[in-house]
Amino acid sequence: MDFKTAFKPITVQPQMIEVKSFEMIDEEIGEHSFTEDQYPVVRRVIHASADFELGKSLIFHRDAIRSGIEAVRSGKPVVADVQMIQSGVSKQRIEKYGGDVRVYISDPDVMEEAKRLNTTRAIISMRKAIKEADGGIFAIGNAPTALLELIRLIKEGEARPGLVIGLPVGFVSAPESKEELAKLDIPFITNIGRKGGSTVTVAALNAITLLAEQE
Amino acid sequence: MDFKTAFKPITVQPQMIEVKSFEMIDEEIGEHSFTEDQYPVVRRVIHASADFELGKSLIFHRDAIRSGIEAVRSGKPVVADVQMIQSGVSKQRIEKYGGDVRVYISDPDVMEEAKRLNTTRAIISMRKAIKEADGGIFAIGNAPTALLELIRLIKEGEARPGLVIGLPVGFVSAPESKEELAKLDIPFITNIGRKGGSTVTVAALNAITLLAEQE
Repeated sequence: MDFKTAFKPITVQPQMIEVKSFEMIDEEIGEHSFTEDQYPVVRRVIHASADFELGKSLIFHRDAIRSGIEAVRSGKPVVADVQMIQSGVSKQRIEKYGGDVRVYISDPDVMEEAKRLNTTRAIISMRKAIKEADGGIFAIGNAPTALLELIRLIKEGEARPGLVIGLPVGFVSAPESKEELAKLDIPFITNIGRKGGSTVTVAALNAITLLAEQE
Repeated sequence: MDFKTAFKPITVQPQMIEVKSFEMIDEEIGEHSFTEDQYPVVRRVIHASADFELGKSLIFHRDAIRSGIEAVRSGKPVVADVQMIQSGVSKQRIEKYGGDVRVYISDPDVMEEAKRLNTTRAIISMRKAIKEADGGIFAIGNAPTALLELIRLIKEGEARPGLVIGLPVGFVSAPESKEELAKLDIPFITNIGRKGGSTVTVAALNAITLLAEQE
């Protein structure tokens, strides 16, 4: 490869950009009632979305942070509903404890079973995930149907995730799926309303793995 | 794989969810001055973010839609700044015209050159991209430094993208990089402010490829 373009120095210090961004968030967030161990997740979600409303809409089960950290440290798998989350998450902090990041939605057996049962791959992927990755962190940022199925499996006693990060975005089903999650007495991070998505799910997950490493 | 869990029908019609969501967006968006060919991009960005403020902050160069459609139809490559965009975009509508989706940021030569010049991989990845994918669609949702470098290369006459989708998110550099893009007289889609990110960049790109297929 030939880089003929003359190099012109541009002030680029990604680390400094993050530090400065976090300072701006701390200054602008105003009043909130997040605990000291929840706030790093909120801050990173705001950093990834530039959206204080979204950050402040987060809700945490009281065991969410502790149980999420435990899942990471004990090398439990992370299950994502879509490829984008698997691509975006910082994997080295998961892998260093023996964990990995999995997406079941494009597995041939999931596709086949979804067709056979005339349902979505998102639903079937959760049924497979609870068998192979129970106790892990479930990070759902896209498919409310996946979250609703996971909730059903939890209620029926078939799934015991270490942490559910449920942040699907959308106008239909997404808000309802998050309301259902917030009713459960299991470790969860979710939010109120339509907003969410893969990038903020990645941000929440990265915050948890950072906490696992730091504390 | 064994799916012992009894199948319970859940009302899941992803197509219907999208139709219903689009109806809700049309109802709630209120007044705007987007043209008929820009609106499908705005709507899809709102669909992916559940954020009307973000959707309504979009700015289009007058040639953006036409030139983006042309780039897709003539099989030009799509260059993304990060893997998440490559994972998230609907590739079949790009590939059917002969195009592909590329990310240069983890290429060994890019990593090596960034180290040698003590700069970021995002910057060097754009220098490589303009050589190998000129005339293509540049979809930048994460790294303002990549967008600033692309703008510099365009100004110096070294890059002639078919369309720049510049929607990096963030508190530092991202808003400034988008202001700079909006000053250029080249086909661009960008927005005003801090918001943006990989998922909305994917949404804008998917909207363009859908237009390319439909019109």
